[in-house]
Amino acid sequence: MSSFLKQLNSVRDIRTMTYSQLQELAGEIRREIISVVSRNGGHLAPNLGVVELTLAIHKVFNSPVDRIVWDVGHQSYVHKMITGRRDDFRTLRQFGGISGFPKPAESAHDAFGAGHSSTSISAALGLAAARDLKGESNAVVAVIGDGAMTGGMAFEALNHAGHLKKNMVVILNDNEMSIDHNVGAMSGYLARLRTDPMYTRGKEDLEQLLRKIPIGSALLRLGERLKDSLKYLVVPGMLFEELGFIYLGPVDGHDIKAMTTILQQAKSKKGPVLVHVLTKKGKGYRPAEKNPDKFHGVGAFYVATGEVLEKSDTPTYTEIFGATLMKLAHQDEKILAITAAMPSGTGLTKFSRAFPGRFFDVGIAEQHAVTLAAGLAAGGYHPVVAIYSTFLQRAYDQVLHDVCLQNLPVTFAIDRAGIVGNDGASHQGIFDLSFLRPIPNMVIMAPKDENELQHMLATAVYHQGPLALRYPRGSGTGCLMDKEQKILPIGKAEVIREGTDATLLAIGSMVHVAEEAAKILAARGVKAAVINARFVKPLDEKCILYYAEMSGKLFTLEENVLQGGFGSAVLELLSARGRGGLLTHQFGIPDTFVEHGSPELLLARYGLTVEQVVRVVGEKLAKKNYSGKLRLAPN
Amino acid sequence: MSSFLKQLNSVRDIRTMTYSQLQELAGEIRREIISVVSRNGGHLAPNLGVVELTLAIHKVFNSPVDRIVWDVGHQSYVHKMITGRRDDFRTLRQFGGISGFPKPAESAHDAFGAGHSSTSISAALGLAAARDLKGESNAVVAVIGDGAMTGGMAFEALNHAGHLKKNMVVILNDNEMSIDHNVGAMSGYLARLRTDPMYTRGKEDLEQLLRKIPIGSALLRLGERLKDSLKYLVVPGMLFEELGFIYLGPVDGHDIKAMTTILQQAKSKKGPVLVHVLTKKGKGYRPAEKNPDKFHGVGAFYVATGEVLEKSDTPTYTEIFGATLMKLAHQDEKILAITAAMPSGTGLTKFSRAFPGRFFDVGIAEQHAVTLAAGLAAGGYHPVVAIYSTFLQRAYDQVLHDVCLQNLPVTFAIDRAGIVGNDGASHQGIFDLSFLRPIPNMVIMAPKDENELQHMLATAVYHQGPLALRYPRGSGTGCLMDKEQKILPIGKAEVIREGTDATLLAIGSMVHVAEEAAKILAARGVKAAVINARFVKPLDEKCILYYAEMSGKLFTLEENVLQGGFGSAVLELLSARGRGGLLTHQFGIPDTFVEHGSPELLLARYGLTVEQVVRVVGEKLAKKNYSGKLRLAPN
Repeated sequence: MSSFLKQLNSVRDIRTMTYSQLQELAGEIRREIISVVSRNGGHLAPNLGVVELTLAIHKVFNSPVDRIVWDVGHQSYVHKMITGRRDDFRTLRQFGGISGFPKPAESAHDAFGAGHSSTSISAALGLAAARDLKGESNAVVAVIGDGAMTGGMAFEALNHAGHLKKNMVVILNDNEMSIDHNVGAMSGYLARLRTDPMYTRGKEDLEQLLRKIPIGSALLRLGERLKDSLKYLVVPGMLFEELGFIYLGPVDGHDIKAMTTILQQAKSKKGPVLVHVLTKKGKGYRPAEKNPDKFHGVGAFYVATGEVLEKSDTPTYTEIFGATLMKLAHQDEKILAITAAMPSGTGLTKFSRAFPGRFFDVGIAEQHAVTLAAGLAAGGYHPVVAIYSTFLQRAYDQVLHDVCLQNLPVTFAIDRAGIVGNDGASHQGIFDLSFLRPIPNMVIMAPKDENELQHMLATAVYHQGPLALRYPRGSGTGCLMDKEQKILPIGKAEVIREGTDATLLAIGSMVHVAEEAAKILAARGVKAAVINARFVKPLDEKCILYYAEMSGKLFTLEENVLQGGFGSAVLELLSARGRGGLLTHQFGIPDTFVEHGSPELLLARYGLTVEQVVRVVGEKLAKKNYSGKLRLAPN
Repeated sequence: MSSFLKQLNSVRDIRTMTYSQLQELAGEIRREIISVVSRNGGHLAPNLGVVELTLAIHKVFNSPVDRIVWDVGHQSYVHKMITGRRDDFRTLRQFGGISGFPKPAESAHDAFGAGHSSTSISAALGLAAARDLKGESNAVVAVIGDGAMTGGMAFEALNHAGHLKKNMVVILNDNEMSIDHNVGAMSGYLARLRTDPMYTRGKEDLEQLLRKIPIGSALLRLGERLKDSLKYLVVPGMLFEELGFIYLGPVDGHDIKAMTTILQQAKSKKGPVLVHVLTKKGKGYRPAEKNPDKFHGVGAFYVATGEVLEKSDTPTYTEIFGATLMKLAHQDEKILAITAAMPSGTGLTKFSRAFPGRFFDVGIAEQHAVTLAAGLAAGGYHPVVAIYSTFLQRAYDQVLHDVCLQNLPVTFAIDRAGIVGNDGASHQGIFDLSFLRPIPNMVIMAPKDENELQHMLATAVYHQGPLALRYPRGSGTGCLMDKEQKILPIGKAEVIREGTDATLLAIGSMVHVAEEAAKILAARGVKAAVINARFVKPLDEKCILYYAEMSGKLFTLEENVLQGGFGSAVLELLSARGRGGLLTHQFGIPDTFVEHGSPELLLARYGLTVEQVVRVVGEKLAKKNYSGKLRLAPN
């Protein structure tokens, strides 16, 4: 059998291939995706779902002259493979390799970068408006999932696009779910479009009815009057039509020929067009078809069985969070849980089953998630918003304006904080300490391990105000777990190790690095104190000042950007309390976006390993002209 | 004439008043609002528009048992007057007086705080869900304008509310505009609902048609089939019905009786109901009816004429921004302007007329505004997003993920940065330096005066990457304006005054404070250098380190919170370069939400006046145990 994939020299070849050749190519692409993702991990089910759709898009549209914008972008693997990155595809998500998301720096075919949801219509509208200003005539296409369509900014963009009437095509890739099952009235609406033949055929039937009315009758006159108004009313996709879009579809998203026809139509129309495409997540790989949630984003797995490889026995932070929240929720009925379309990712699946009335999945709608939490808190409850660090960025104003300004008891359980690894720059959770710290009334903490996580969560849900608890992606440390959760005193650090030569003041995941570094330093004769800060806000001023002054050499360690982060908070404290004269040094992530790669590799890249900390501390202390004595500046 | 307003002891009295009494009360309330706002300034037109609506709400609903959530909240004056704050109303927006926005701390009748747009449906849904969890039965009402309805999170909340089916009433206060004229397809949709009698009567007419079909005919059978599908299709408010709401209206928002009837209906229905109310902004005060934009938010004015009092002759920063952008846009056709429903507030009205094709008003949709800008930039243009500091918080992730991660040339013209005054805690622009600084690729600057603003804007639009330019609310300094705009070197500070006893390093509005303080200090024999930092990112490291070392005493001054702000950036620099041993002190806003009051009063409250800076610098330098010598720590 000839390999169409191997022979594919350029995306232009797609346009000259027959439908049956494209169908074969689709099969080859599926096998290649399964093969690479089974080794590298990645977003399997979304990509298997859009193989035919991507081929149809590239058959009809002339990329990169025509601009294709992928929403979220985790479904861009097929696109990458056929736009010059077939051979690099094996390096997917690996350090130095190709990204798992669209990246303009990687290829001209990636018209716009992505990673977060619901941005594609805005970006495509910008590209379409720019095209018109330049007097050019290329097509602009946004491909957005039904889940992403529930994000408010997608609606903002539809509303504006319907108003501006620019030529553009929005392809609604309707797979009846986002990461977990889709929620919200919009999804009910899409389901009606999909399944109710009366609903989609309303227009046709009505016209038939009107035709049967005898000419010249009063009925006809009424009918004529009706026709005008029914033009708006009795068409499928009314909701989109109301917003100024022409609605086409629904069309089978695995039938390349049918899609090609409808996309050609869409391309030729004036003004914004929405094409409703029905796809099946995980299509063509049975384990993924059966369990698309599990195979949405997945680590390495056995192709034959779909079994995940090398699953660690150590529970993840996410699992400990979920299990602890269940325990606490059994004790206190005021505790509620909220997720924005990520019940499994945030560890809330069991909670959702045990307490369905106390669990809210709002869809991909982080802003609403946070203000809903504020409303629930104003109503006397304590909601826990479980969210990835990078997605909390979506609800910054809601955290500040709706929760913290009113000082409402909402816990933010911030998962995937710090370096997340292979998902890359759009997903690193390295900004949260910096953007949360300026917000008044907010308490911020981070556990050194999963045992501390359970105590911190208990502390959080009994705290009468906003609280952010951030913890890393992946497995915990495997430490012993206490049977009971303890309430920790707010703003109190933990002294882990005494030492007078230097003070290592660490937060969260970096506490263990500090501990290990201190052990090695001790073996070399340097006695370093190790403090687990526990709280980024409020800081344990007394403890920090005492240890800082005792050694005169203060090192802060955090898995967050240095700008405005934990170390910066400590510097502010020292300055405010007139403690000049200390040797200070901050370990953290520098002022750069962190690309994809394994966490170990990335942490080493930014000097956050035990060995690097030992080396730098040693060097700083060894400088001859540093007196080592503390001088107190006045305050 | 008896005064119903004076006799009003409790909001309960509203429920026993006759419609004609309420109509008289409405007139009294209007006069009182005009009287107080003409002295204190405030949101006039929105409140005049909702007098009857507010009375109807309180006639039907039993606040505070029933929970009323005001979206944005600038239209809550009537509500405040009749819920126990009639006598305090004269203190509106004054320091220590009542807030211009709903505030739960002020009254139990303010069910949820507000200030920013589009949050009410989320909050109300939270309150409704909390009510059901508690097994209570009170009503929950959200009052949201047609402008706020274009904000994405309102759609997120509608979508979720339609799914959860909680009993709640959303009152859509449709005044055909937000702050400026409304844009977007949604507004076209609402206009059709308002004005096309066929459109709203479609259902009725169709039922009439179907009734006329002879019984037993084939037509009837077809008609029966149609009926089912038409239940969804031919009803006014389809878009809301599709999202799971019962739509009632439209109803005249100045007819208390009609509204009372429809609100009673809404209250008795199961599930979420949307009531479409048509109001006129500025109703009952001719100057505001004729010019609702001007009277949306207004300073003191003459009641007789509507003429604004004490208008300064000095141009505002906003005006200089608008005029400079016009000049630059004439020279370079790549420059575009974007606003989120604030063309006049951000100084873009003239631009919108001169360059209609290069101007985008996206409605209240900050997220979309920023990602649209990213799309336009990816298409080869340089968009300037003009936005208030406090509203930029709404698009934090879009700034980070869509603009900065792709390093696109977008300028953020951040108006109302720093203390804004009487609008209070929800509107202060005091967080932007802190939340922008952690974002890689971002350049951040702030001008010392309006002349520097024009140069900075020219610098911004020729910078090939993301850039944030923040400037204050209100009049400039009245300085001389250069004829030509100059491009400033990125990351270069300006030395304003030499001095070796202390270094005052200031940004933006605080540069003049530093200058004045240095003059007074000089008269007292203390020679302080004054540096205008110009850039918060990148810092002028060389200049800052040189002057810091020279004096050994470094004072930073900023109109931003201290947590993670400009001073914090300077401390990070000193630490990273091993400059311990300096006396450092930060002037800025402490870790608190800043309430309403005049800017002068608030700046004094937080120690940011010339006199306070002189005093603190003097005290710090006078401390006996401070050696005044610099010691270099090693790096």
